[in-house]
Amino acid sequence: MGQPPSVDDAQRADAWGQEGANAEKPVELTPELRERLARVAVATLSVQLRKRGYDTVIIDGVRPLVPGRGLVGTARTLRYVPYRKDLFAARGGGFNAQKQVIDSVDEGEVIVMEARGDSTAGTLGDILALRAKVRGAAGIITDGAVRDAGPVVELGIPVYSSGTHPAVLGRRHVPWETDVTIACGGATVQPGDVVVADDDGAIVIPPALVLEVLEAAEAHEEEDAFVVEMVGRGEAVDGLFPMNAQWRARFEQWRSGRHGA
Amino acid sequence: MGQPPSVDDAQRADAWGQEGANAEKPVELTPELRERLARVAVATLSVQLRKRGYDTVIIDGVRPLVPGRGLVGTARTLRYVPYRKDLFAARGGGFNAQKQVIDSVDEGEVIVMEARGDSTAGTLGDILALRAKVRGAAGIITDGAVRDAGPVVELGIPVYSSGTHPAVLGRRHVPWETDVTIACGGATVQPGDVVVADDDGAIVIPPALVLEVLEAAEAHEEEDAFVVEMVGRGEAVDGLFPMNAQWRARFEQWRSGRHGA
Amino acid sequence: MGQPPSVDDAQRADAWGQEGANAEKPVELTPELRERLARVAVATLSVQLRKRGYDTVIIDGVRPLVPGRGLVGTARTLRYVPYRKDLFAARGGGFNAQKQVIDSVDEGEVIVMEARGDSTAGTLGDILALRAKVRGAAGIITDGAVRDAGPVVELGIPVYSSGTHPAVLGRRHVPWETDVTIACGGATVQPGDVVVADDDGAIVIPPALVLEVLEAAEAHEEEDAFVVEMVGRGEAVDGLFPMNAQWRARFEQWRSGRHGA
Amino acid sequence: MGQPPSVDDAQRADAWGQEGANAEKPVELTPELRERLARVAVATLSVQLRKRGYDTVIIDGVRPLVPGRGLVGTARTLRYVPYRKDLFAARGGGFNAQKQVIDSVDEGEVIVMEARGDSTAGTLGDILALRAKVRGAAGIITDGAVRDAGPVVELGIPVYSSGTHPAVLGRRHVPWETDVTIACGGATVQPGDVVVADDDGAIVIPPALVLEVLEAAEAHEEEDAFVVEMVGRGEAVDGLFPMNAQWRARFEQWRSGRHGA
Amino acid sequence: MGQPPSVDDAQRADAWGQEGANAEKPVELTPELRERLARVAVATLSVQLRKRGYDTVIIDGVRPLVPGRGLVGTARTLRYVPYRKDLFAARGGGFNAQKQVIDSVDEGEVIVMEARGDSTAGTLGDILALRAKVRGAAGIITDGAVRDAGPVVELGIPVYSSGTHPAVLGRRHVPWETDVTIACGGATVQPGDVVVADDDGAIVIPPALVLEVLEAAEAHEEEDAFVVEMVGRGEAVDGLFPMNAQWRARFEQWRSGRHGA
Amino acid sequence: MGQPPSVDDAQRADAWGQEGANAEKPVELTPELRERLARVAVATLSVQLRKRGYDTVIIDGVRPLVPGRGLVGTARTLRYVPYRKDLFAARGGGFNAQKQVIDSVDEGEVIVMEARGDSTAGTLGDILALRAKVRGAAGIITDGAVRDAGPVVELGIPVYSSGTHPAVLGRRHVPWETDVTIACGGATVQPGDVVVADDDGAIVIPPALVLEVLEAAEAHEEEDAFVVEMVGRGEAVDGLFPMNAQWRARFEQWRSGRHGA
Repeated sequence: MGQPPSVDDAQRADAWGQEGANAEKPVELTPELRERLARVAVATLSVQLRKRGYDTVIIDGVRPLVPGRGLVGTARTLRYVPYRKDLFAARGGGFNAQKQVIDSVDEGEVIVMEARGDSTAGTLGDILALRAKVRGAAGIITDGAVRDAGPVVELGIPVYSSGTHPAVLGRRHVPWETDVTIACGGATVQPGDVVVADDDGAIVIPPALVLEVLEAAEAHEEEDAFVVEMVGRGEAVDGLFPMNAQWRARFEQWRSGRHGA
Repeated sequence: MGQPPSVDDAQRADAWGQEGANAEKPVELTPELRERLARVAVATLSVQLRKRGYDTVIIDGVRPLVPGRGLVGTARTLRYVPYRKDLFAARGGGFNAQKQVIDSVDEGEVIVMEARGDSTAGTLGDILALRAKVRGAAGIITDGAVRDAGPVVELGIPVYSSGTHPAVLGRRHVPWETDVTIACGGATVQPGDVVVADDDGAIVIPPALVLEVLEAAEAHEEEDAFVVEMVGRGEAVDGLFPMNAQWRARFEQWRSGRHGA
Repeated sequence: MGQPPSVDDAQRADAWGQEGANAEKPVELTPELRERLARVAVATLSVQLRKRGYDTVIIDGVRPLVPGRGLVGTARTLRYVPYRKDLFAARGGGFNAQKQVIDSVDEGEVIVMEARGDSTAGTLGDILALRAKVRGAAGIITDGAVRDAGPVVELGIPVYSSGTHPAVLGRRHVPWETDVTIACGGATVQPGDVVVADDDGAIVIPPALVLEVLEAAEAHEEEDAFVVEMVGRGEAVDGLFPMNAQWRARFEQWRSGRHGA
Repeated sequence: MGQPPSVDDAQRADAWGQEGANAEKPVELTPELRERLARVAVATLSVQLRKRGYDTVIIDGVRPLVPGRGLVGTARTLRYVPYRKDLFAARGGGFNAQKQVIDSVDEGEVIVMEARGDSTAGTLGDILALRAKVRGAAGIITDGAVRDAGPVVELGIPVYSSGTHPAVLGRRHVPWETDVTIACGGATVQPGDVVVADDDGAIVIPPALVLEVLEAAEAHEEEDAFVVEMVGRGEAVDGLFPMNAQWRARFEQWRSGRHGA
Repeated sequence: MGQPPSVDDAQRADAWGQEGANAEKPVELTPELRERLARVAVATLSVQLRKRGYDTVIIDGVRPLVPGRGLVGTARTLRYVPYRKDLFAARGGGFNAQKQVIDSVDEGEVIVMEARGDSTAGTLGDILALRAKVRGAAGIITDGAVRDAGPVVELGIPVYSSGTHPAVLGRRHVPWETDVTIACGGATVQPGDVVVADDDGAIVIPPALVLEVLEAAEAHEEEDAFVVEMVGRGEAVDGLFPMNAQWRARFEQWRSGRHGA
Repeated sequence: MGQPPSVDDAQRADAWGQEGANAEKPVELTPELRERLARVAVATLSVQLRKRGYDTVIIDGVRPLVPGRGLVGTARTLRYVPYRKDLFAARGGGFNAQKQVIDSVDEGEVIVMEARGDSTAGTLGDILALRAKVRGAAGIITDGAVRDAGPVVELGIPVYSSGTHPAVLGRRHVPWETDVTIACGGATVQPGDVVVADDDGAIVIPPALVLEVLEAAEAHEEEDAFVVEMVGRGEAVDGLFPMNAQWRARFEQWRSGRHGA
């Protein structure tokens, strides 16, 4: 075949993508935006993300330590790798990656940890949870376990995990690095992603989609509120959920009434 | 061998069974019967069913959304099949099988869903749970997940599931058909079976056995009440549980005293 | 809200879909079509189906009893439900659903069984496998186990299963019904779907897509053959796989040469 | 209630059972008996045991290292407990329980190991497998893993395990005791039980049932041989499998012819 | 090689270990010792045990029936084996091993059950839990399920299990023997071991280590209390957790102040 | 408490470790070293690593595509993260991380992939396996699945995986980055680690330990060869395995004879 074709540079550029993409489209989680995100259900955000092709952004297998404690924030990430003697000696002790992320988390951030779904060792204890709370973290999500569950619950900071376990981190993990792309509960999470959690579970929203998804979710929830009201009055779901043209007309009327005139 | 023997018709009839068998032996769950079923423990019903050769009638892997909410009712069934683009297009939207069963559930019925034990997508949300409640359903059991867990809990209707998850049904399922024989949590459930659930779990009673099993369970629980009283007084279980002849005599005495004279 | 809107009939029709859709678009698996399907890899068919939105049509968790025995055929389906004493009495014995499908399978058909992925009981034994072979079945796929694995292997008929197990069907199952929509290994299978399997696994092709997917797979494999040839000569994959414009030009040349002129 | 009834001695005797029961009904596995057991399929033995109420005597989750190597023998048992530093120090090294059973296994015995189904550490290596072979053991079954799988395969002794793994026993286990009642692959095995294995799996026969089950299995296999012959000739299974009266008559004729006259 | 070397007796003695070792080093759990053990977290005990090479002494997969009910006690053990008809007949009924241990448990003892992690059958019901409470048991831990969960919760006795299930013991188990070395939740437990549990989980302490581990845990918790106080004041964890020389000096000062002077 | 102590620099330096440690202690895998590593069993290497505190360096859950194909090489690493639409768009296509590592793998290197143990999508196909072979790679290990298993087997290059699956990478993964520290089958692997695999499994050796571990393994295998010879002659394992003083003396004699004089 003679000389191989030289590699197409544009193609390669396209292929590699740009690590910094997210950083370029930061979404500023203003207090108003946080409040709106906290008001919509994760279930509703999930529908809107799925509609846009995002069907793998739910962090599976994690539960809130205490039901009823939702969270909204931007992700800080932490990656653990499996325990290995030499690597733990090099990176496990002292001011390790785990402590670095906790000591540097900022107001409104959510720490998200990759622990490979292993629930047989702690990945967070009461001292670090307290430090995160003092720094104003919005919460912590780990697909590993939580130690000192009793005291952590009392701190009040929202924590989602795959369970509780008394063992220290080093039983299974080496704290490896912070602020990189990680896998948590089957979802990929990047620093700066927006994370929202409630009793249904936790979801990751790529920053560029936050506003669009939020607005669509709010509109969606307004429709649902109408449907709930109708069903509460005894209406059948047939034709109403999803709405046919007649019900949609009534909804618009209801909606106008609600938003005033 | 020459001509094969012609197939034995009686044999084949026997082999095929009769789909309608259950329907022919309906048990009417009168308010009195419901109350009696609600008073016995699922654990006790389980013993009596096992004694009669029914060892696979427990719906495994489902938990009540809220402990303490038991249920008693006759089964309405709903079967999901795995998501497939063409089949979802044909059956997933609009007034689908899921909505049909919810819109037609009657007072005192329990909706039981086959979701192949997959807890990574919702199979029930707050609107449908509300509709079921409005129609007087006794409860809902699914071996899939529940969405909108918070609002569903507030509705008060007893719900048993394999967990909670924010994703919509379509992430994993096509709502396929209603009122057929299904598998739920490893147990086969037919429309018209009687379903009872409490904090230990959920059990399926073939209609023809309901009265027999209930009476035996009530007698069993009376014996247990005696044993509990004795153990509470400090008696050893040796000889008492199960009762030997002497203890049985005392039990009969206790029982007579209790039922008055 | 006054009168509820009457249900939109068109909408409901749309929602219910049409069970018979597949039957309406039967694909005749001519010997030539079978041969072509057998020549492409399941991996390649999988790519083409995924491109068209079919990402859940692989029957997971089943392996060939003997590597190297692929199959192509149209699906006949069989559904088991969990063992229950009364239902087994009604449907388990004699000329049950399992035997009905085996006795009626036709030349070139593949029997696909729903056994809920339970590998702790047989769902096929040597007698039924022999009968299927005598009738010309193209193969058998079950997400349960196979009994009499030794003799079944010797029959030569392609069998895919979740394992082998000595126990009879009745340990876990009641043979329930045939020729209905089933779930097998996480994929939904309808009677008349085209099933293709090789050492990578088994895949389900909705009949209406067979020709389109096959043609695309053949084209795809021709490209791959070119790439394999180039890589075999020492070319890098960068730019070649996938092909950039220059490599594509060379491919077209190679292809012309191959198809003659 | 006054004095509690004294415990009923007969009852207690009944309750405790007698450890030695099996030893009292030893079955002598003569060469002729072994040969007959080796000729019937484990699948057939499984049917006969199930008919007699033994539905949990299959050792699940173990596979032959090499297909085609069946075994027949009486069980010698070995129990491992989870690794614990102090207990391994006391029992793990030197001539431990594992080595004791291997050094004392007799001709025709099968060593059966309880490793709690953990396949992440070896429970048998090539040296011990060789020693067992030299002593004439009929085979080895473990629900843990095998180390040195290559050399063990070459020894030719039948070995069934949950997999292969390079790690030593001590990674997960302390060899604890021999010749006690154990659980292996979900089945309880006592010293002296008869164990038979083939490619379908391994089964445990309580000694008192061996002759009865074997004879029934042989009769069963003769019926199956007839059915296979008929199906091979093109007969339908309807009426033939299971046999109706007409087919049974033909079978008796066939059988008479076979046993000569 | 001529005569084989005679076996080295000292070596064999060393290898066999001594079953009675624990019994020789009993730790008397005085009320004062119990109180101290109840005040330290299982998480802290876990750290100290791990430091001493005990990394497999956590009973995994069990949860408290009711959060907040910790326990401290010495282990009494009970071993179940898988259900088998003949063995259940011999050992399952009447005053079986399960009832024997419950009827003989003493003040401050913890009953620990080996149920092979099977959560599909009860291993404890309300009558036996009541009897254990009446006898003063410190609690019950089983890696099987609990029946009658509602009444058991009301008794108040701490219970840890792998779940709740309505089925009786006999669905999966034969109660086999008491007061032997068992495996529970992946940890080996011997009679006389000290068991401590809280919301993080349950841990087993070999008797000989109790005092040493307890004292180290108390010292450890004092350090943690200081760190918590500092973090609560806004200090960073860098340098403080673990403490560098400067922080350690401050800690000693704080500690002196606390213990008075 | 006044001013917090400034962070101890040496401590922090110690805590962070040095990423480059491995790179600083490269082990050159000369042909002679490779050959020696290929001659010792992974099982033996595992013993020696465990003795030195490396108990988590076995890549669990991967099997050779074809038994008997061992491998030895230095690791090149590749990390996948879960599929996400935006990230796949940025990094999934074209000359992605997967293709980069394959196109740059050097003679004697082993490509090791982190696929989170997910066996429901391919992570290697025939074209890339061919390219790796052409470049002289020693083999490929993935804890995901392999596509095109048939052709890959024919290439002859050693491949270890968690299974085979027809689906493309993008069904579950985004190829993320190369040459970083990864987790594969529960073991942490760094670029430059030495990887050895045979039918028992695959093991990771930190470079600094290769010579020490290899020499110890060779000595260990010589002892085992002696023991095998003795056991083959009918000697008991008691006293011989492990060797007591007398056997050790004989071994030394045997060894001297073997190494000549």
